[in-house]
Amino acid sequence: MTQFTNVTVEKKANVYFDGKVTSRTVLFADGTKKTLGIMLPGEYEFSTSQKEEMDFSAGKLEYKLQGQDWKSIDGEGAFIVPANEKFQLKVHTVADYCCTYFNE
Amino acid sequence: MTQFTNVTVEKKANVYFDGKVTSRTVLFADGTKKTLGIMLPGEYEFSTSQKEEMDFSAGKLEYKLQGQDWKSIDGEGAFIVPANEKFQLKVHTVADYCCTYFNE
Repeated sequence: MTQFTNVTVEKKANVYFDGKVTSRTVLFADGTKKTLGIMLPGEYEFSTSQKEEMDFSAGKLEYKLQGQDWKSIDGEGAFIVPANEKFQLKVHTVADYCCTYFNE
Repeated sequence: MTQFTNVTVEKKANVYFDGKVTSRTVLFADGTKKTLGIMLPGEYEFSTSQKEEMDFSAGKLEYKLQGQDWKSIDGEGAFIVPANEKFQLKVHTVADYCCTYFNE
């Protein structure tokens, strides 16, 4: 899917880590929320409140979920993060991602 | 306006200047195209093909249109750039902008 159609976009950006991670919120008619984001090279730790899917379409990075080993993504790759967990990222090149939030 | 409703969003980001300037393309039912973007601190020169409105909602920056003096925006401000011109920006803090393209 290269486009999201019939959606609502929040005009204001979400800005984290002095702008090295930013995203835009996209709301779907069925209530689904996604964010489309960019991460510049750097090391980051995030905390989830909801279960999330992080789906990368560009970028070279490593990620670590709680209790798991570091894994790599080079270009395209996705992973699921459970609710109320921390995960770590080492981003090596500009990364383009889509995060989907789940209500389960 | 804090949201754009009933729009199409391109999933892939537009990435310039090694990711220091990025944006997402938003398409409206009437054919209007806007981009929602972020600029990190830095100095940039852009060229327009279409007439554009650059509308900043956050950030401290200076801008210079062709043949004009440097002007400042601190927080909120907008300017129009004619088609086929260059303009320069000195961005001092993370800037959140909306660019509207005109077909005239």
